[in-house]
Amino acid sequence: MNTTEWISRKVSKLQEVITPLLVANAAKRTLEELKAIIDPSVSEVEGGKRAKRVADWYAKAPIEYKRECWLLMSEHFKADPEVAKTAQAKFAAAVGTPEEAVAEVRLRKSTVSPRRRLLQRFSVFPEGIQFLVNMRAEILPSLKSDKRLLALDAEMEYMFSTWFDVGFLELKRISWDSPASLIEKLIKYEAVHDIKSWADVKNRLDSDRRCYGFFHPRMPNEPLIFVEVALLHDIAGSILPLLDESADAEDLNKSTTAIFYSISNTQAGLRGVSFGDSLIKNVVETLKAEFPKLKTFATLSPIPGFKAWLSKNAATILEQLDDKALEKLGKAVGFQPPTAEHFMFALDKVSELDAKSPIAQVLLGCAAHYLGREMRDGDPVDPVARFHLGNGARIERLNWAGDPSAKGLKQSYGLMVNYLYDLKRLDKHRNMLAQGKIPVSGDVEALYI
Amino acid sequence: MNTTEWISRKVSKLQEVITPLLVANAAKRTLEELKAIIDPSVSEVEGGKRAKRVADWYAKAPIEYKRECWLLMSEHFKADPEVAKTAQAKFAAAVGTPEEAVAEVRLRKSTVSPRRRLLQRFSVFPEGIQFLVNMRAEILPSLKSDKRLLALDAEMEYMFSTWFDVGFLELKRISWDSPASLIEKLIKYEAVHDIKSWADVKNRLDSDRRCYGFFHPRMPNEPLIFVEVALLHDIAGSILPLLDESADAEDLNKSTTAIFYSISNTQAGLRGVSFGDSLIKNVVETLKAEFPKLKTFATLSPIPGFKAWLSKNAATILEQLDDKALEKLGKAVGFQPPTAEHFMFALDKVSELDAKSPIAQVLLGCAAHYLGREMRDGDPVDPVARFHLGNGARIERLNWAGDPSAKGLKQSYGLMVNYLYDLKRLDKHRNMLAQGKIPVSGDVEALYI
Amino acid sequence: MNTTEWISRKVSKLQEVITPLLVANAAKRTLEELKAIIDPSVSEVEGGKRAKRVADWYAKAPIEYKRECWLLMSEHFKADPEVAKTAQAKFAAAVGTPEEAVAEVRLRKSTVSPRRRLLQRFSVFPEGIQFLVNMRAEILPSLKSDKRLLALDAEMEYMFSTWFDVGFLELKRISWDSPASLIEKLIKYEAVHDIKSWADVKNRLDSDRRCYGFFHPRMPNEPLIFVEVALLHDIAGSILPLLDESADAEDLNKSTTAIFYSISNTQAGLRGVSFGDSLIKNVVETLKAEFPKLKTFATLSPIPGFKAWLSKNAATILEQLDDKALEKLGKAVGFQPPTAEHFMFALDKVSELDAKSPIAQVLLGCAAHYLGREMRDGDPVDPVARFHLGNGARIERLNWAGDPSAKGLKQSYGLMVNYLYDLKRLDKHRNMLAQGKIPVSGDVEALYI
Amino acid sequence: MNTTEWISRKVSKLQEVITPLLVANAAKRTLEELKAIIDPSVSEVEGGKRAKRVADWYAKAPIEYKRECWLLMSEHFKADPEVAKTAQAKFAAAVGTPEEAVAEVRLRKSTVSPRRRLLQRFSVFPEGIQFLVNMRAEILPSLKSDKRLLALDAEMEYMFSTWFDVGFLELKRISWDSPASLIEKLIKYEAVHDIKSWADVKNRLDSDRRCYGFFHPRMPNEPLIFVEVALLHDIAGSILPLLDESADAEDLNKSTTAIFYSISNTQAGLRGVSFGDSLIKNVVETLKAEFPKLKTFATLSPIPGFKAWLSKNAATILEQLDDKALEKLGKAVGFQPPTAEHFMFALDKVSELDAKSPIAQVLLGCAAHYLGREMRDGDPVDPVARFHLGNGARIERLNWAGDPSAKGLKQSYGLMVNYLYDLKRLDKHRNMLAQGKIPVSGDVEALYI
Repeated sequence: MNTTEWISRKVSKLQEVITPLLVANAAKRTLEELKAIIDPSVSEVEGGKRAKRVADWYAKAPIEYKRECWLLMSEHFKADPEVAKTAQAKFAAAVGTPEEAVAEVRLRKSTVSPRRRLLQRFSVFPEGIQFLVNMRAEILPSLKSDKRLLALDAEMEYMFSTWFDVGFLELKRISWDSPASLIEKLIKYEAVHDIKSWADVKNRLDSDRRCYGFFHPRMPNEPLIFVEVALLHDIAGSILPLLDESADAEDLNKSTTAIFYSISNTQAGLRGVSFGDSLIKNVVETLKAEFPKLKTFATLSPIPGFKAWLSKNAATILEQLDDKALEKLGKAVGFQPPTAEHFMFALDKVSELDAKSPIAQVLLGCAAHYLGREMRDGDPVDPVARFHLGNGARIERLNWAGDPSAKGLKQSYGLMVNYLYDLKRLDKHRNMLAQGKIPVSGDVEALYI
Repeated sequence: MNTTEWISRKVSKLQEVITPLLVANAAKRTLEELKAIIDPSVSEVEGGKRAKRVADWYAKAPIEYKRECWLLMSEHFKADPEVAKTAQAKFAAAVGTPEEAVAEVRLRKSTVSPRRRLLQRFSVFPEGIQFLVNMRAEILPSLKSDKRLLALDAEMEYMFSTWFDVGFLELKRISWDSPASLIEKLIKYEAVHDIKSWADVKNRLDSDRRCYGFFHPRMPNEPLIFVEVALLHDIAGSILPLLDESADAEDLNKSTTAIFYSISNTQAGLRGVSFGDSLIKNVVETLKAEFPKLKTFATLSPIPGFKAWLSKNAATILEQLDDKALEKLGKAVGFQPPTAEHFMFALDKVSELDAKSPIAQVLLGCAAHYLGREMRDGDPVDPVARFHLGNGARIERLNWAGDPSAKGLKQSYGLMVNYLYDLKRLDKHRNMLAQGKIPVSGDVEALYI
Repeated sequence: MNTTEWISRKVSKLQEVITPLLVANAAKRTLEELKAIIDPSVSEVEGGKRAKRVADWYAKAPIEYKRECWLLMSEHFKADPEVAKTAQAKFAAAVGTPEEAVAEVRLRKSTVSPRRRLLQRFSVFPEGIQFLVNMRAEILPSLKSDKRLLALDAEMEYMFSTWFDVGFLELKRISWDSPASLIEKLIKYEAVHDIKSWADVKNRLDSDRRCYGFFHPRMPNEPLIFVEVALLHDIAGSILPLLDESADAEDLNKSTTAIFYSISNTQAGLRGVSFGDSLIKNVVETLKAEFPKLKTFATLSPIPGFKAWLSKNAATILEQLDDKALEKLGKAVGFQPPTAEHFMFALDKVSELDAKSPIAQVLLGCAAHYLGREMRDGDPVDPVARFHLGNGARIERLNWAGDPSAKGLKQSYGLMVNYLYDLKRLDKHRNMLAQGKIPVSGDVEALYI
Repeated sequence: MNTTEWISRKVSKLQEVITPLLVANAAKRTLEELKAIIDPSVSEVEGGKRAKRVADWYAKAPIEYKRECWLLMSEHFKADPEVAKTAQAKFAAAVGTPEEAVAEVRLRKSTVSPRRRLLQRFSVFPEGIQFLVNMRAEILPSLKSDKRLLALDAEMEYMFSTWFDVGFLELKRISWDSPASLIEKLIKYEAVHDIKSWADVKNRLDSDRRCYGFFHPRMPNEPLIFVEVALLHDIAGSILPLLDESADAEDLNKSTTAIFYSISNTQAGLRGVSFGDSLIKNVVETLKAEFPKLKTFATLSPIPGFKAWLSKNAATILEQLDDKALEKLGKAVGFQPPTAEHFMFALDKVSELDAKSPIAQVLLGCAAHYLGREMRDGDPVDPVARFHLGNGARIERLNWAGDPSAKGLKQSYGLMVNYLYDLKRLDKHRNMLAQGKIPVSGDVEALYI
């Protein structure tokens, strides 16, 4: 070990000792600064300025300092249990008396934590809300390992659900005439079918397409969620023509069908605050106003959980096949009787199969079962199905080779599904779902094994 | 009694019997409709549509029906005390354990009433928030006589304080180039010095004036509060030149002083939600950016409670005069020793008095005492003083004959006061006030009796 | 005569001598400055700056200096006759040869005066075009008395007709949400029915009204011409209900008829540049797009020249009455046979007459004659008739007591007329007019004496 | 020859006969339609509609039909020579009399061709001006071979110079927040340094860059000309760092120098209408307002004509070298005495040379001579030099290897030049140029051979 190594080793050891001290010291200072933000003798404007200073410091702080900051915000600004207890007792006593209303209000106020005031002060300066949303996105991955952060996370989710109430959002069309800086964000945020280039995104904003996003007045250049729509004369069964940059635009005068082929949330920090339902319904109304001839509103959606589910449940499914079907499948895979392994092995070459082939037919049956019958805790097990069925849509059609990309094959053997938004039956479908029955078209029902 | 009279009387009796039945019947239906709004099986979008239908019905309903609607909203949508009790117990038990944070959040959620969800659904449709603000303005006068409405009022105040958080408001300049429909609202809402005509309001929007208001994205054409500012080279002592339509505009290059001469809240329904402090501070920053030469920021304010206060406290004040001062006053009013009655009687002709006269000097002393020393529950007793001193201003100067209008004489014998916003001492002044001491300039202190 | 008087007289004499010298001196300097503007060695940007300096000087100059400036611009910047002559000769020689086109272009260029370049340079700085328009408005009254200004006037008219080409104008709706500063201009410029107050103008911008103006990109806050329209269910016969501020707004769903009841040019300096035809046709298209139920487009117009014309032509008209009609009229005026003087005297009390009375019937006949038959140089003699008939409208209906205001009585004994814009017959009507025949409805034709 | 071939040959022969007939027939109809546009009995609005119909027809017409249309517009709508002659005679006679002004105006009017009215009518409909600009761009290549089109071309140039007068143009900043559809046009139109990708254009719109364009109100989405500027702390000598997408943005607080590194005209149809001078001067003013620390404004420009010029003039230049210099050059190229051929041959490997090498020094001397001394008809011979020197700039610095791209090597052996815009000396420099002397810095002068 030469001198340099020796020094370097010493420094490293020193750092091990010093870093926690530094962090602890910084934490102490940060706590003071956080408390100063909600100092009751200070005006909202001044509180906002102090919050801004903390945010500026945070932006450059190393991750250890940030973690400390989260913990401080979560643990040092909680509601006072004693106050809550007293208020609860008073409320209980007041029930049925003329003071009940006032007692109820006092109880609610008593449970409001200083943490909420802290978050509110961060909302005062212009970029404050974006700051908090970004901070929550940073915190989320640590939630499982550190329960102490749950209180801060819940408080944020609550405040965000108030601030980002759908009534405050603005639906805006995004087109090729939108700012390049905004379109660049579509490229970045697109979560379903990756945008490969500017030519790709231009195709998706062509004259026969529509793209809409929700925007918040405090984050004017940031779409919170956006949806891509194709205007067609029929329900689309494959994503390929929609992503084909060289395809001609459809004639809008003949469009009868709006296909929602991609919906992307953009802000991880807004987890738990949902806009999708409102977005789709607002877009449907906007489209109907612009194109009165539109009659059908449906999605062309991936089935993200299908392959993973099938790999665990193939055996159970095959048991349900009758002898004839089993024999047919056996012929196709080359083994009698065919096992789940044989079936899964044959699916490795799914892209070579025809939709009418026995293996394909069994696979479609599995997918119909997965989407139309598999539920967990009262909800459809597939996440995309959960979203659209929860909005009142129904499962309309399964599409063979709908997405033959590597991603499509990996998720669902290339299968895609259409969810139909039948505007007159949304509530009826929601009720069915609430009673544990997934609404499914006759065509899909016919695929059940 | 002829036949017509007889019929009319019968009808009237019948109405007495029928009206309550009708109202009760309508109430039943209204309750169902309100409950349908927050039906959990219904999407937010659909809930918003239902709320819109109730709002449309309400707009045309007679007052009896409206009252019933308020009561329903206040009494039928309260939080469940049992749920709150259980949550409280769980929280108390969790204190100090790793589950504390989650328990805290659950407690808070348990105290949230269905009433809040009801209000939120009204916020979904575009005019919904304005609807709620207007409804609260209608309810406010009934609050004292009907305690049952307190819960609804408190819930509204809470929701409004969230929705109208200063961070969400937009500061906009209102000028002669603003829409006529907006300027018409200034005329309607101006609360301090009535706007008599379009020529009057044009003068207040002249090149040497500024007018700013806070706007909410959901009520874009409605100023929530606005302030009128004159740019001068000295602190104004009289409102007359500021309201003189024929006066020439000041030379902006010489302006060193911004005088806030009128601040008006416009929405009675937003009682308890305060913007004034933020408005003034934002306007100060905006003005400093546009006119770097501005050094002094002050108000020219009325003293609305002075005369009423003096009529009750004159005797006590006069007792504090020393013999010499008393004799001087006696000479002036023509009685030795002068009583409170003599003094008040002499004040009937206050508009004929000179600022240097003995009566005027005593009156100024009384006003200094009223503003600078009279407090109730730790707050200055005059409402305008309460507002500005609460923001960190100090009492700078009393102005004889500052507002010789009928209103000015009636409120404060024509006296006006300047509150100074010394930006570097706002917090210091707030602290003084918190310790029970009203910050006052040397000039005003010298007036104390 | 005391000393003061003596001095004052001397000064006055001195001024008489000095003023022309000063003016002459200033003129010399101004000429140099004007020449410097079009100095060919100077860039357009620099030329524009020099023009701006002259405009700033002009704004404050006394009228004598301004007059000199006009003369200089008119007389010192004319085209070179020699150059024009040569170019003309070359063009004549080139006719029929391949060089004809080029020669034609050169001829045109040779006739372009330096004056035009001067005007163009004034158009470079932002307010330059407004400056020139205002200057021409100042010059117009002097044109008759000073022919030397004609060249400048003609040059301006030519440039303005290019700059204010209708293709460059923007049609904008003016509503109660328009800037107060713009609405104030409506009050100022309204030329047909004076706007008496802000309440009056608000009524004219009510929900059942429309107001449109043409705007030029270089004068964005200045309407060049505007028209006021009422949406009704029938052709209006009187201006009174349209100007009644307390009248309820019409139900727009029932509107079938758009009445243009006021058209005002605002810029005297744009004399000779016409927008009215385009304005009306653009407004008709805009209204049809917004209200597909509109079927009838007509004016309610004054007859400004009628009374003056009648006072000269009454005798001639009466001669055309048959005996029966003459006797009837005689009875009504109380003289047999009635002379023009009797008739005119009776008309002094026109506001007391009923539309069916013999005097009224003769008066209506005279008006029909005046509008439908009187032409000068191939054009209708009444200026408003000239405008609408020139646009292709026809005379539809005469209205008794259509405008009983003092102005209405003074112009046309209170009569008003409707011009109908029948969109399918505009060209047909223009052709009729070109052949010397004024298009008139059957109803009006029936009134002819 | 089989039957198919035989038929095909017949059809082809038939087409040869029929096509001219078809074109002639179409021409006849087109002429009628063109005449109908300026039918004096038709309103401007109606004329505009007719022009629109011709434009719609033209958009789809084959090239032969378009050519006919051009000829018709050029030859059938010329001014009447007889009228011009008479007006000229009257003007000549009126010179010196009071009627001179009016006669001058009449003469000018007499030379205005119906062709101009035709063009004006095309300007009435919204896309009309763009239509004419595009049509002229189509005509331009045919001008040399068909003189008959010159009249139409000249008329268009005249009208365009009026419509596109700089006073009517709007200077707009183009940034990464501009519409993608606009930025796409930058990519398309960039004429100096090709934009290779969206990453390339994003770099050119980075925080230390500015891009400005002139826009016309009638072509709002089309930049007429645009300039790209880099904000630096020194005059740039190489284009490479400016086009380096991975380079960090400069610190704007330290910027003292604005470098104009690309100026592109976009509309071929606007040939002869110049905006560049105004653009640069407007941009300079805009930049100075935003960045008061900017002191130096210069270009980094290509020398497009240098290599072509040198290949013709190398021998002449070498003659001017003194013996010592010639010997030095001879050593470098390996021949004594070196001929032009030797020199040019050595330049094939210019990219391997150092700026200090003898060959480089001679080359720089040649470039200095080319830019600073070569004139034709009183103008600098290099087109870019002509533009900037004409605006009043001076030649500031020659940069070795300023643009080592293939294009840069091909145009000018990689040399680039800075033109300096010294705002206080623009007029002085323009005057020098007018006197035949190109303004050049001392550094460049020192390079002269």
